[in-house]
Amino acid sequence: MRLSQYFLPTLKENPAEAQITSHRLMLRAGFINQTTSGIYTWLPMGERVLKRIDQIVAEEQDRIGCHRITMPTVQPAHLWQESGRYEDYGKEMLRIKDRHDREMLYGPTHEEVVTDLVRQYVNSYRQLPLCLYQIHWKFRDEIRPRFGVMRGREFYMKDAYSFDIDMDSARTAYEKMYNAYLRTFARMGLKAVPMRADSGAIGGDLSHEFHVVADTGESAIYYDKAFENLTEADYSMEKLGKLYAVSDEKHDPATCPISDDQLVSRRGIEVGHIFYFGTKYSKSMNLKVAGPDGKPIYPEMGSYGIGVSRLVAAIIESSHDEHGIIWPEEVAPFRIGLIDAKNDAQTQAISEQLHERLTNACISVLYDDRSERAGVKFSDMDLIGLPWHVIVGGKTLTAGTVEVKNRRTGAREDLTIDALINKFLGD
Amino acid sequence: MRLSQYFLPTLKENPAEAQITSHRLMLRAGFINQTTSGIYTWLPMGERVLKRIDQIVAEEQDRIGCHRITMPTVQPAHLWQESGRYEDYGKEMLRIKDRHDREMLYGPTHEEVVTDLVRQYVNSYRQLPLCLYQIHWKFRDEIRPRFGVMRGREFYMKDAYSFDIDMDSARTAYEKMYNAYLRTFARMGLKAVPMRADSGAIGGDLSHEFHVVADTGESAIYYDKAFENLTEADYSMEKLGKLYAVSDEKHDPATCPISDDQLVSRRGIEVGHIFYFGTKYSKSMNLKVAGPDGKPIYPEMGSYGIGVSRLVAAIIESSHDEHGIIWPEEVAPFRIGLIDAKNDAQTQAISEQLHERLTNACISVLYDDRSERAGVKFSDMDLIGLPWHVIVGGKTLTAGTVEVKNRRTGAREDLTIDALINKFLGD
Repeated sequence: MRLSQYFLPTLKENPAEAQITSHRLMLRAGFINQTTSGIYTWLPMGERVLKRIDQIVAEEQDRIGCHRITMPTVQPAHLWQESGRYEDYGKEMLRIKDRHDREMLYGPTHEEVVTDLVRQYVNSYRQLPLCLYQIHWKFRDEIRPRFGVMRGREFYMKDAYSFDIDMDSARTAYEKMYNAYLRTFARMGLKAVPMRADSGAIGGDLSHEFHVVADTGESAIYYDKAFENLTEADYSMEKLGKLYAVSDEKHDPATCPISDDQLVSRRGIEVGHIFYFGTKYSKSMNLKVAGPDGKPIYPEMGSYGIGVSRLVAAIIESSHDEHGIIWPEEVAPFRIGLIDAKNDAQTQAISEQLHERLTNACISVLYDDRSERAGVKFSDMDLIGLPWHVIVGGKTLTAGTVEVKNRRTGAREDLTIDALINKFLGD
Repeated sequence: MRLSQYFLPTLKENPAEAQITSHRLMLRAGFINQTTSGIYTWLPMGERVLKRIDQIVAEEQDRIGCHRITMPTVQPAHLWQESGRYEDYGKEMLRIKDRHDREMLYGPTHEEVVTDLVRQYVNSYRQLPLCLYQIHWKFRDEIRPRFGVMRGREFYMKDAYSFDIDMDSARTAYEKMYNAYLRTFARMGLKAVPMRADSGAIGGDLSHEFHVVADTGESAIYYDKAFENLTEADYSMEKLGKLYAVSDEKHDPATCPISDDQLVSRRGIEVGHIFYFGTKYSKSMNLKVAGPDGKPIYPEMGSYGIGVSRLVAAIIESSHDEHGIIWPEEVAPFRIGLIDAKNDAQTQAISEQLHERLTNACISVLYDDRSERAGVKFSDMDLIGLPWHVIVGGKTLTAGTVEVKNRRTGAREDLTIDALINKFLGD
C-alpha cells in the first residue's frame, strides 16, 4: 500500500481530549476519529487491527467448537421483560421506539436473544452441548464516555453463550473457554492474568476476569509471578486457580497468602469476562430440553465476553514507547513499513520494486512514498508502530543493502534485498 | 465440520410466513432466524455466506483503491440537521434519544458522517481523489418489513463514498465503481444488468441500479441480450450505456428502440445502486479544499451501495431448484457436502478419514455424520445446496470409489479417493 494514496491522517499535536496513552496514540496515528461522544469511526489502519483481532478471537472460538452467528443489534424489549432484566438494566441501555411505537433496544449483551433462539430449535439433550458466539457491535450508554475506545458507547465485542445438560458439562464448557482466552491473548503477544470475579449484573456463581498487564492500566492488580511465564501446558483452571491473583479492592497485604518476592504488583486492563450462571435464563425464558429419561431439563448456561475494540487500546497500553505504538506482529495493520529515505530517482525506483516484490510475496507492507523529509517519515513510522521498518537510502545505492529496523528492540541490520525477502518469507 | 456437532436447524415444513423462495429456503435450510419483525439472526451457515460475500465485495473495493473503514451505526442528529435531511428522511429513520436526551439515529446511510470525517482531515486538492467504504449494519424502519432479508429493517450493506476535485475526476471514480460492481457480481456467479436510474432521495444527476436476473425477482426488467454474455472486456460505462436496459415502469413496447429478438424480458432484483451527486453534501456541510490555485473547491462526491445481506437472498432467488438452494462455488458456505450413506462401521471409518484429508487440504467440507437414513441426508444436502456432494456408500466398499455429485447439473461420477482429492486441489 502506498502511503501517498492511503488515508492515514496523523496528527502533529497531542489531542487535548485524550487523557490516556492509547487514546492519544490512536488519534495521533490516525486509527480512529470521534464521531460523537463515546462513538468512533475506525479509520483504515484501525479497521485493519480490529479485523486481525477479530480473526484471532474467531479462530480460537472455532477451535473449541463454538459456532459463529450474528445476532441483531436492535432487539425487541419483550425478551428482556421475559428475563426480568428490562427494568433493572437502567440508563446504560439505549432504549428505542420504532415507528409503530414498539419498545426496542440496542443490545448491550445478548443472553435473551440467544436463549430465545435456542429454545426455538433445541428440544433434546442430544443437541447439547452447544456453544454459539458472535463478534458484533454493542451499545452501552455510559454516562461519561472517556478514554477513547477503552470506554466508548458503541463497541465491538465477542460474546459467546454455552448450553449444557448438567453442571459438569457446563463446567467443562467454562474451562474450555477459560483456556481459549489464555490462548487468544497469548497469540496477540499479551500477558493476561485471569482472576476470580464477582459476577455482577449478569448474576451467577462462577466468574473470571482476564486482565492484560500494562503499566498504564486502569487498575492495580496483584498476582503470583508464576503468571508471568505461562505456557500452554499451564492452561488449567484448577492449577491456575490455586495461584494468587486479585484486583486492588480485594488485595490486603496483611492477609496476602504469598510472599513479597513471589507477588507481582502491576496495573491491568480488563479485556475478558466469563460467567457461569446456571439456569437463570433457561428458567426465566422457559428453555427446556428432554433429558435422557424424557424428563424436561433446563440447560445450564454460561456467557463469555472479549472486548475486541477495547483490546486495540489495551494492546497499545501494554506495547508502546515515547515515540508511539509498537504493534505485536500478530495484530499489526501492516507487517513492514517501507521508507524511501532519500526521495531521489534511484531510491524511488528501488523502493517501488521492493514494494512490488513484498506485495507479490503476500508480505503486507505500507510504503511511505511521500516526498517528506526522512526525519518526518521515520517519526511517523515510529508513531504508527509497524513491527519492521525497511529503509532504502544511501547505503542501498553504494552497498546494495537496505536497513531493517525492529520497532520493538530498535535493533538494526543491513540486508541485501534478496536476504530481506527471505527473512520475511521464512517467518 | 461434523454436522452432528454443528448448529444447522433445518425445518421440515415450509414456514407459513415466507412468501418468496429465498425467504422460505433460508428459513428451512437453517440460514437465518427471525428475532423480530424485519430483524434476523444469521445462523452459522448464513453467517458463512455473508462473510464470503463480504470478502469478495471488499476485495473489489480494495482493487479500485478504496479504503475500508467502519463508521458508527449510531449517529448524532446534528450532522443530518446540517445537511438538511433530518426532517426529510421521515419515519424510515430510526430516531433515538440517549440518556442525556440528545437526538441520535441508527444510520440508514452515511453521507453525513463521512463528509464530516473528511472535512476534519482533508484540506488540499493534493489529498484527493479519496474513496472510503465500509461494510456494516444499517437500519431502515420499513413500515411493512417482508420477504426475509430481502426487505428487512436491520441489514448489512457495503457503502462507499468518493471525493474528487472536479467532475471529470468524479466521473472516473464513478466509472471505476461501475466496473467494480460488474466484476463483483460476476465473481459471485450472478448475471447483473446495470440500468440508468432516477437518483431518488439522495439526489443528483448520474445514477445506475444493478439488477440481478432471477426468475423469481421482484420486478420486470427489459434489456439487450448483449448483457447476457458480458466479459471483462465489455466493462465500459460508455459502451454498455448505449445498450437498452430499463425497468418495467420505463419500458414501452411501442417506443422500445431494439428489436424483439434482441430484447430480453426477465425479472430482476436490485442489489446495487450508485450515485454521483456533485457538491450536495460538500456544500451543505462546508467541506472544502484548497485547489491548485489556492482557491477553495467543494469536492464532487458520489456514493455507492451494495446490499450484502440482500445479496444472499438474491443469489438464492437466481440459483435454486425444487429441492433447495444451489450455491455458486464462490459464496458457498462449504464447498463439499460429505455423506455417509450407509452408517456402518466401514463407511464411517472411510468417511472420517476423508473428512480429515479434505480438511487438512483446506478444502471446506460439511460432513453429515448423523445416523439419519440416506434419503434424509440426500434431501437435506440438496436443501442447503453445497456445490459438490461426495457420497460414501456400497460402491466405496466394493470398488473403492466415492460418488461425486454436482449439485447444479446433477452430474455424477465415481472417483477413487485420491482422484477426488486431486479434483478439488486442482481447482
